[in-house]
Amino acid sequence: MLDAASEAQVRELFASQPFMAYLGVTIARMTRGEVDLVLAFRPELGQQDGFFHGGVIGTLADSCAGIAGATAMPPGSNILTVEYKLNIFAPGQGDRLIARGSVIKSGRRLTIARAEIAALRDGVEKPVATALQTLMVLPKDA
Amino acid sequence: MLDAASEAQVRELFASQPFMAYLGVTIARMTRGEVDLVLAFRPELGQQDGFFHGGVIGTLADSCAGIAGATAMPPGSNILTVEYKLNIFAPGQGDRLIARGSVIKSGRRLTIARAEIAALRDGVEKPVATALQTLMVLPKDA
Amino acid sequence: MLDAASEAQVRELFASQPFMAYLGVTIARMTRGEVDLVLAFRPELGQQDGFFHGGVIGTLADSCAGIAGATAMPPGSNILTVEYKLNIFAPGQGDRLIARGSVIKSGRRLTIARAEIAALRDGVEKPVATALQTLMVLPKDA
Amino acid sequence: MLDAASEAQVRELFASQPFMAYLGVTIARMTRGEVDLVLAFRPELGQQDGFFHGGVIGTLADSCAGIAGATAMPPGSNILTVEYKLNIFAPGQGDRLIARGSVIKSGRRLTIARAEIAALRDGVEKPVATALQTLMVLPKDA
Repeated sequence: MLDAASEAQVRELFASQPFMAYLGVTIARMTRGEVDLVLAFRPELGQQDGFFHGGVIGTLADSCAGIAGATAMPPGSNILTVEYKLNIFAPGQGDRLIARGSVIKSGRRLTIARAEIAALRDGVEKPVATALQTLMVLPKDA
Repeated sequence: MLDAASEAQVRELFASQPFMAYLGVTIARMTRGEVDLVLAFRPELGQQDGFFHGGVIGTLADSCAGIAGATAMPPGSNILTVEYKLNIFAPGQGDRLIARGSVIKSGRRLTIARAEIAALRDGVEKPVATALQTLMVLPKDA
Repeated sequence: MLDAASEAQVRELFASQPFMAYLGVTIARMTRGEVDLVLAFRPELGQQDGFFHGGVIGTLADSCAGIAGATAMPPGSNILTVEYKLNIFAPGQGDRLIARGSVIKSGRRLTIARAEIAALRDGVEKPVATALQTLMVLPKDA
Repeated sequence: MLDAASEAQVRELFASQPFMAYLGVTIARMTRGEVDLVLAFRPELGQQDGFFHGGVIGTLADSCAGIAGATAMPPGSNILTVEYKLNIFAPGQGDRLIARGSVIKSGRRLTIARAEIAALRDGVEKPVATALQTLMVLPKDA
């Protein structure tokens, strides 16, 4: 369960990032420690074969894991991506990507989160990538 | 030294990726095993503070290392990002990002490459991120 | 389900690695795509506080994920660690470590696997680390 | 330049880790932000082909980068491995491993370091692996 104030804070953080709107990413689901993002395909998000570009997959992985971490942080604190590692094991072929972020370990200083990216094609979902991320939690006044 | 045919092949691969043009990424320098990409800031590439979004930094890291790997592959072969790990250690604050990819180890099946990302602000360059990447080389007929 | 011949092949591979015996690692469970390793604490496996050394945690992570990958490979093929990323989020404090490896994606050329490491202390299990690994499958005659 | 008090502190930290002695790791060189570790081959450090086991390579990578980070931290503070990513691109075949750790970015809360691992065989050095690591700096009283 995510209380209304925390959810509003996270949604505001997301809405304040112009790059998310430029790509067309939206929040499909949000609860404490878990966030799903979705993104519909458009040709300008593609690579040479007309699949989602790896940079788009990486952006979604970083973002869904980071936002999942943000839902678990104390109110008012800030969260930064320290690093992540992404494995892409299938092409991003489909009309939509869905990126599911979940917190593995929420700590006082650092949070560890995971991302699972899948492509939806004619209603069938296929795993595309997975990421493991480290986030830094900054207290409100830091 | 990169021969003209190989350079043309890599530039064609880059030009065939719509997402690179959508972001505005260009190739600033290319030699065998090394590629520099640049990207000028625009508000739609930003996060909440008006700095380059982490997804943009990740996209550049993945791309410059991958293209560096492509310059070192046998003619006609394909190259895929298997995975990468990115550390972001400073905000992407500046009017331009420069991403330098270089091959660490070029193998028959796998290539390992590195990316160094810096932000340029009023002509001063500041390191922002580094990445370590694994690429898979696919023979022409695979 | 892992057939008897495959299990024998994987157990033989494990037994042929002197470093596993030098540390005292044993296989606790094995099925297709999943392997659990266990290791009892001894002072020589420790760091400055008498907890399991990070190198021991890393060795178990690499090994359990790699062996999980080996259970899913075609008979006679070889498997190599290409790379892994390990997050350690709690001290390795306990009388035993348990390392659970599982295959995320088993491919023709590459396999992706995960490791979860926990410490057992007075019968209570506490998560310590997680890893994401890429393995290369080499056909028998390669 | 590393002052004598800092060097003594780092050497004491290293000497207090029984696992380093159990493997036989020694410090070959230390300066501010850089540390070289060496380890001679013994059969019990091997894998199935009589090369250094991947766990040994990983332990050296984690340790040399972590100790390099320790040489750059404020006196009295503690340093912890948050995570690392290791690419192994050649077998650890040789009579000795040398592991060179160096700090990429030393921050107030986090330090980023790199490791380069090479095998020495009949006096010839061959690169074997590289790692990218995140360390957390804990103030003395934390």
